[in-house]
Amino acid sequence: PYGQQNMNEPLLDHREGQLFLTEAFKVILEEVLCKGTDVKEKVCEWREPEELAALLDLELRENGEPQHQLLQRVRDVAKYSVKTNHPRFFNQLFAGVDYHALTGRFLTEALNTSQYTYEVAPVFVLMEDEVLSKLRSLVGWAEGDGIFCPGGTMSNMYAMNLARYRAFPEVKLKGLWALPRLAVFTSQQSHYSVMKAAAFQGIGTENVFKVKVDDRGCMIPEDLGEKIELAKSQGAVPFFVHATSGTTVQGAFDPLEPIADICDRQGLWMHVDAAWGGSVLFSKEHKHLMRGVERADSVTWNPHKMMLTGLQCSAILLKDTTDLLKHCHSADAMYLFQQDKFYDTSLDTGDKSIQCGRKVDCLKLWLMWKAVGSKGLQERVDRAFAHTRYLVEEIKKREGFQLIGKPEFVNVCFWFIPPSLRGKENSPDYHDRLSKVAPVIKERMMKQGTMMLGYQPQGGRVNFFRMIVISPQLSHQDMTFCVNEIERLGNDL
Amino acid sequence: PYGQQNMNEPLLDHREGQLFLTEAFKVILEEVLCKGTDVKEKVCEWREPEELAALLDLELRENGEPQHQLLQRVRDVAKYSVKTNHPRFFNQLFAGVDYHALTGRFLTEALNTSQYTYEVAPVFVLMEDEVLSKLRSLVGWAEGDGIFCPGGTMSNMYAMNLARYRAFPEVKLKGLWALPRLAVFTSQQSHYSVMKAAAFQGIGTENVFKVKVDDRGCMIPEDLGEKIELAKSQGAVPFFVHATSGTTVQGAFDPLEPIADICDRQGLWMHVDAAWGGSVLFSKEHKHLMRGVERADSVTWNPHKMMLTGLQCSAILLKDTTDLLKHCHSADAMYLFQQDKFYDTSLDTGDKSIQCGRKVDCLKLWLMWKAVGSKGLQERVDRAFAHTRYLVEEIKKREGFQLIGKPEFVNVCFWFIPPSLRGKENSPDYHDRLSKVAPVIKERMMKQGTMMLGYQPQGGRVNFFRMIVISPQLSHQDMTFCVNEIERLGNDL
Ligand SMILES: Cc1ncc(COP(=O)(O)O)c(C=O)c1O
Ligand SMILES: Cc1ncc(COP(=O)(O)O)c(C=O)c1O
Repeated sequence: PYGQQNMNEPLLDHREGQLFLTEAFKVILEEVLCKGTDVKEKVCEWREPEELAALLDLELRENGEPQHQLLQRVRDVAKYSVKTNHPRFFNQLFAGVDYHALTGRFLTEALNTSQYTYEVAPVFVLMEDEVLSKLRSLVGWAEGDGIFCPGGTMSNMYAMNLARYRAFPEVKLKGLWALPRLAVFTSQQSHYSVMKAAAFQGIGTENVFKVKVDDRGCMIPEDLGEKIELAKSQGAVPFFVHATSGTTVQGAFDPLEPIADICDRQGLWMHVDAAWGGSVLFSKEHKHLMRGVERADSVTWNPHKMMLTGLQCSAILLKDTTDLLKHCHSADAMYLFQQDKFYDTSLDTGDKSIQCGRKVDCLKLWLMWKAVGSKGLQERVDRAFAHTRYLVEEIKKREGFQLIGKPEFVNVCFWFIPPSLRGKENSPDYHDRLSKVAPVIKERMMKQGTMMLGYQPQGGRVNFFRMIVISPQLSHQDMTFCVNEIERLGNDL
Repeated sequence: PYGQQNMNEPLLDHREGQLFLTEAFKVILEEVLCKGTDVKEKVCEWREPEELAALLDLELRENGEPQHQLLQRVRDVAKYSVKTNHPRFFNQLFAGVDYHALTGRFLTEALNTSQYTYEVAPVFVLMEDEVLSKLRSLVGWAEGDGIFCPGGTMSNMYAMNLARYRAFPEVKLKGLWALPRLAVFTSQQSHYSVMKAAAFQGIGTENVFKVKVDDRGCMIPEDLGEKIELAKSQGAVPFFVHATSGTTVQGAFDPLEPIADICDRQGLWMHVDAAWGGSVLFSKEHKHLMRGVERADSVTWNPHKMMLTGLQCSAILLKDTTDLLKHCHSADAMYLFQQDKFYDTSLDTGDKSIQCGRKVDCLKLWLMWKAVGSKGLQERVDRAFAHTRYLVEEIKKREGFQLIGKPEFVNVCFWFIPPSLRGKENSPDYHDRLSKVAPVIKERMMKQGTMMLGYQPQGGRVNFFRMIVISPQLSHQDMTFCVNEIERLGNDL
């Protein structure tokens, strides 16, 4: 159809396009949302890379393809993709589907605008403001600032950059050469985004001081104090403490009050990475885990994890009321942020961002929140905790399962000790052999497609499973299934 | 429905959710895709911020809302959002809708996975690789590396960071204090992301040297040479030249061959920011504009601009074959990138990124490419150029329209001189009065909702219009309408 048309007519046929989209929507409903959430179906349809590449016929060619073939491609992509909406997907810090959020995402995609000016995103400028202010109020701040970022890593990077700018505003113009060597503090078990931020922002990973954690994975405040002194004794200037609410592996909550005391005393920026744990703030019962968060300068919170908004949805929240975000990041581009506009240009929030075009990430969260209310969100969180308790009891009951600590959050970490290793804790190759168990079980579950959960070593611990419990998708059966399945897959090891 | 359910049952009703999604899909089709692309409908439904906030009832409350009310919210969001798919939206470097790309976006949202490991994104790991390699081959590279980033600004930031790391790998560990003061070079009219990158990466905006441009907005290579000497004479160490293919305002193409000669001679990393202009590489007729691009070290290319994939879709392409991307950015997180996996872990590309969770941005481009083929994409580009020529002729014919330069690309920049100012070029307040014309016309077009295009001052030029012509949406009538409409709205000024 391309090529012959008159220049007076559009190249694109809307009717035809909408027909295709409608057909594809049915496929998505059927394959991704019905089958993809059905426990009788597989979580994944494992293929070796070469085989998968051939099945998908990925190559891009000179000529286009007919509609029916494209529809088949939609089916294939769905078929061979992992079903992260499936109740037996426990592999990441996201899982499950919320249909209102998904509606918000479809609408975002169809509207396709960029979150930088009131002119092109009037609804979303106002909506982002409302959502951020609501998230801030859960943190305990009546005012402040913030912005949605493409992921928690970026949100954490914003925090580090803002802290640096507040301490040394000359960095924006002159770079780090005008500053003393800086030092960052975070726990041994914090997310690796701290290291990525330090490298990317020119601070260097050696200037990140790793503070010791206790058995549960929580930062030890006394050691923070010591590490600060250590940095100073080396001539570095501390400026930024990165605490974590909900660590990636163990789900640990750093003790924010004592950390805040230290930050106060030393005049340091306190950041709380609550990318994972932030959602406990919805729950009256569990928000105590983040006691003291209101004393922080900034908080990262990813609704795309526990709140099921879908990737990407991450906010950096700030206590600041001095327009630091704008001062730190603005470049005053005149083609976008004209000052002689006919409306209040403080609504053109794009220059607060380090991006230019910025995807609209607030609508999905807003629509879901409208749909279930703060109460509904609280219930999801409470339910995930309740499910976790159930899973923990289930695991305790079983021979061959060994919990790692008592979960503070919804990460359940454990070893499966196969029959051949039980009672052999003291044999010299025990840990070596145990470390090989999880990878084999993982391979088997993937190839059979029955469920997905992750494993990793950490500190002195050899490979153990990490199972993530995210409401509201789950029922007890799913968790029981998972534990049984590990037994089934690992009993011969 | 929340609260009373048994813990053995999932909290969420898939059937109910899917029904809502299906109803909402119809609304999206109707409001965003049918009405939103209909020339008889408005491009935007302007409201003052206070009024809009009230209309939308943005507040998030304790309780959820019934489905019919939520559906009305979907309608309202659609109604008051700008219709960037509308043929009379000429305001940004994106516009229009491609239905196959949109299908890819819906599918991406429904599948909701993260682009970091083969384990959770098998299809998309392979697909990203294919798409990147195809984009690279258009640049002229048989091998290389690359990654999709959340926007061109991030892609440009990657380039600067990689360049720094190649020149001084110790920066990753030790930070900028271990390095001499660095210097970056870019044209006066390059995108502001260079400044944001320099600030964010700790280099400082004062260390960005702005190279002069000619009348069309193209970098003057002789001045690049001089600026490099200037930087050296100040004791700074040049490492990075940021050239532009398709500048944001004028659509200018920096002369890549002479820039590459200088970079070769001086041993500098050459980056080409083709976020906007990259799509000319699809066209046999127009790719000469980027002659020499294959000599660059890296290229930024945003398919979300001219190629209509929808936000966000931006690639950073690299000539490098030494795994620089990985070395520079990796943090080796063991919970995600275990080395004892049962498949080839080089497929776990996530550690190349500075992000952790990363949205899947390749599917929409891939599906669209499959649908129309490279030929179809080439035709879109050629058509946009042809439309631009038409628009330029149209503007030349009209009294009161004054073109700024001869467009190299699809950005058409011009002044509208209202009757009261014609022939008054020499009066002392001419420029002052002319500068006020575009903002007033802009206000009027927004309030009437008939079309959208942008304006800005630049260099010594007072406010002028920038009209962006993006195929395949347009017909000649749309452009004629736009020019007529400017006359209608500005004739009394
Ligand atoms: C030349 C150029 N480079 C980079 C960018 C930044 O791209 P993004 O908006 O995706 O960050 C733009 C945006 O308009 C641009 O025009
Ligand atoms: C504690 C913590 N912080 C930050 C992040 C990064 O979030 P994102 O994946 O959105 O970049 C994660 C991701 O798992 C995390 O667990």
